[in-house]
Amino acid sequence: MSAAHELVLSDEIVSAVDAIQGEATEFLKTIVAIDSTLDKGEEEVQTTILKLLQETLGSGADVEASGAKSTQPNCFDVERIPVILDKIKDKRGFSPVDWNYDESKFNVVASYQGGSSDGSEGSNKALLLQGHVDVVPANESDGWTHPPFSPIIKDGRMYGRGSGDMKAGVVAMIYAVIALRRIGYLPRTNLTICTVIEEECTGNGALAANHTSLLPFSDTTKTAVIIPEPFNFIVNAQMGVLWFNAKITGKPCHVLQTSAGSNAIEGAFSLFAALKVLEEKYNEPSNRHAVYEGIDHPVNFNLGKIEGGNWASSVPSSCRFEARVGFWPGIKIEDVKRDIESTLNDEANKLGLGLEIAYRGFQADGAILLPDFVGGEASGKKSLQTDFVDSLQKCYKTASAGDESNAGRKLLVKPITCTCDARFYSNLYQNSDNVVVTCLGPESDSIHGVDESVSLKSFRDCMVTIALFINEWCGLEKEETQ
Amino acid sequence: MSAAHELVLSDEIVSAVDAIQGEATEFLKTIVAIDSTLDKGEEEVQTTILKLLQETLGSGADVEASGAKSTQPNCFDVERIPVILDKIKDKRGFSPVDWNYDESKFNVVASYQGGSSDGSEGSNKALLLQGHVDVVPANESDGWTHPPFSPIIKDGRMYGRGSGDMKAGVVAMIYAVIALRRIGYLPRTNLTICTVIEEECTGNGALAANHTSLLPFSDTTKTAVIIPEPFNFIVNAQMGVLWFNAKITGKPCHVLQTSAGSNAIEGAFSLFAALKVLEEKYNEPSNRHAVYEGIDHPVNFNLGKIEGGNWASSVPSSCRFEARVGFWPGIKIEDVKRDIESTLNDEANKLGLGLEIAYRGFQADGAILLPDFVGGEASGKKSLQTDFVDSLQKCYKTASAGDESNAGRKLLVKPITCTCDARFYSNLYQNSDNVVVTCLGPESDSIHGVDESVSLKSFRDCMVTIALFINEWCGLEKEETQ
Repeated sequence: MSAAHELVLSDEIVSAVDAIQGEATEFLKTIVAIDSTLDKGEEEVQTTILKLLQETLGSGADVEASGAKSTQPNCFDVERIPVILDKIKDKRGFSPVDWNYDESKFNVVASYQGGSSDGSEGSNKALLLQGHVDVVPANESDGWTHPPFSPIIKDGRMYGRGSGDMKAGVVAMIYAVIALRRIGYLPRTNLTICTVIEEECTGNGALAANHTSLLPFSDTTKTAVIIPEPFNFIVNAQMGVLWFNAKITGKPCHVLQTSAGSNAIEGAFSLFAALKVLEEKYNEPSNRHAVYEGIDHPVNFNLGKIEGGNWASSVPSSCRFEARVGFWPGIKIEDVKRDIESTLNDEANKLGLGLEIAYRGFQADGAILLPDFVGGEASGKKSLQTDFVDSLQKCYKTASAGDESNAGRKLLVKPITCTCDARFYSNLYQNSDNVVVTCLGPESDSIHGVDESVSLKSFRDCMVTIALFINEWCGLEKEETQ
Repeated sequence: MSAAHELVLSDEIVSAVDAIQGEATEFLKTIVAIDSTLDKGEEEVQTTILKLLQETLGSGADVEASGAKSTQPNCFDVERIPVILDKIKDKRGFSPVDWNYDESKFNVVASYQGGSSDGSEGSNKALLLQGHVDVVPANESDGWTHPPFSPIIKDGRMYGRGSGDMKAGVVAMIYAVIALRRIGYLPRTNLTICTVIEEECTGNGALAANHTSLLPFSDTTKTAVIIPEPFNFIVNAQMGVLWFNAKITGKPCHVLQTSAGSNAIEGAFSLFAALKVLEEKYNEPSNRHAVYEGIDHPVNFNLGKIEGGNWASSVPSSCRFEARVGFWPGIKIEDVKRDIESTLNDEANKLGLGLEIAYRGFQADGAILLPDFVGGEASGKKSLQTDFVDSLQKCYKTASAGDESNAGRKLLVKPITCTCDARFYSNLYQNSDNVVVTCLGPESDSIHGVDESVSLKSFRDCMVTIALFINEWCGLEKEETQ
């Protein structure tokens, strides 16, 4: 492929993506409008995406009705993959839950077998584009300017819960492929699109996807994985995250008998204060992982939810809180649990409080996604990781070329202080000689917060970057007319 | 009335009350089994009591069906008195609410016009026996040995929510009158039984009762009021109580952006910590009211209920708590509000938190119920209060004479560190030359707490005390056979 050809193709791709923006933005609006909080609209979003994939990339037949794989050439196989507890509960990376996995809980996979037409290429490279469809809760009463599930566009940004985290990323990765196909291009190698559930609480959706045979991994394939989470940089590491809940029992009584230590809510305050001391200990420079050098306060303990007591004039007998604990890559979850338990039990004993600790949700290892980029820059030697990052940098540079304020910007390579599904494609779970992963998505604001928004320019740039990367990594070939 | 006659009558009364214990205990069990938390079973308990009063003290006719006052002699008029917001909302002592007063919200009044048969006596003394039927919430999961609304009797105590506070007191005061009537006695003067709602949150039930013409108050009557709350002593004062709720808004965001001050739950902790400093200031000896001399920590601020956040991995944007604040008799509620507001606003401003304070529930003045007994002993001069207290002491001594461990015990006179409906009969609301009030009820344990219970021996002693007091205060006359 000559340089001239490459340039033409890039322009063609950029134009194709630009041409599809209206449609993509409309689809983004459609799925942001669905409240896909855990146990709410995950199923509806997945069904909406399944339909889109089938109509645009699949055979167009009603995959739901036929239930069978498409036999047409040049089509993605679009499937609904149930998340089945028995298949994942004993796997590494499973996070415990207290809810059921029924038929409403499924991932969507659209897979394309590239190179099958001529057999000449396609066997040694592959691409997985993955995103999650669930969102965290949003209550308008928390101060949203507009209802969180009635997306609006203002000053080049779409506002709404999940707009940034990560429905824009999901739509960008899907429409990147659609845009290519609209102008007649299909990847030369295997390409899989996967939308998963439960990234925001367990990662069990991604774990289940990993344990199907549908992902484009093999011992002879170099597979790149891009998860367009709302980080407008190349992610080289993520923190470990553990969720737990604590039930504190005091000695309930009339407020006239109030005495120190018997109030379960005040007990919860004291217990969390003890945890904050542990948080600071984790953050101490001597305990810090090298990849987080220069990052302010990477370990965060968050008291995310609390509920206790039932009457202003009764000393509360019980209080329950849910917390999220961050920890460094390389630290064992069991060690974190032991720290949490001993900290909380010591404090509870001191105060004479009853305490039950339970684990539900995240038991997510911290992970180094790009070990060759621990310092932010490549360590020197050429590798699968440097190929991957160089390609992404190149594609992003082209994608953002039209943006005067941003033109030619090199993406930073840095860690995130939270978790995401990328860990399942790190060297903790995959052979890093064959699989490389990062997150790179549109610039977003206030994710998990009020008035969450995503930049539509960045959404477009992300879509262009992915479309160009498909060309870089997989190669493209003209679809033969049927 | 000779001393010999008096002795015979006392024995007769004690026997009559003892004879009715099984029945009274059964009725207590019946109403403890009704969860009469605000907006739950207040109506059912009141209806049950109304029926009992009508059948035992009233005409026996279905007061609900007839709706008319009994015209039979020697009968109590038993009435359902609706609590109507418009009639109380501008009255002193009203506590604001955010619920409706519909037809399910009513007091029950049974009134007897004594002395009407011969006109010789009955006009210058009267007695009001009042109690509340509402209870505070109880959740079995908080550690109850038995379900809180399935009362059981064990080792001489009845266990169940409301057994002590104050259904035993209510049943004791009603069955004291029933016991007398069973042996043919009716009071010579006016006697009113009143059961009210909402003592545990507002006092608006008692306030509404005050604003009917049914209570036995007049410029020429000396009216004693006994509220058999679960205090096994004579109550000379009660604290002021103010309820408020605070809504704290932080700056919500993903936990990866956690920074000090943005977490609304942690904000609530800080705000309440600031309030605890104010609590200690209120408790300082120099600020203390004389009636609370020697009482440990009378001013209590209680964080009774909290709810905040919705996701372990989202920094909570809002948190709401409900609190109860105690304050001294003589302190103006507006001054307490100002203290609370300035304390909370200062802290919220310091932390950059949003704050809304709202008042719902108690705005209860502190009150000196027995000004002549501020030190616990009468100040010397004989008064309506000393007559009242002396009579109660005498009756209680007789009532508890059979109890070896307790025989002849003189009741303590002391203040309570909470509020109750007695304030409406204090000199804040009534002419203390004509009205005297206290609380005296059965010994109870763990009121507002887990495994609340009441001593059945003390329940009986309380019932005997009230029956004897009716004789002392009102005098008794034999009911004429129809």
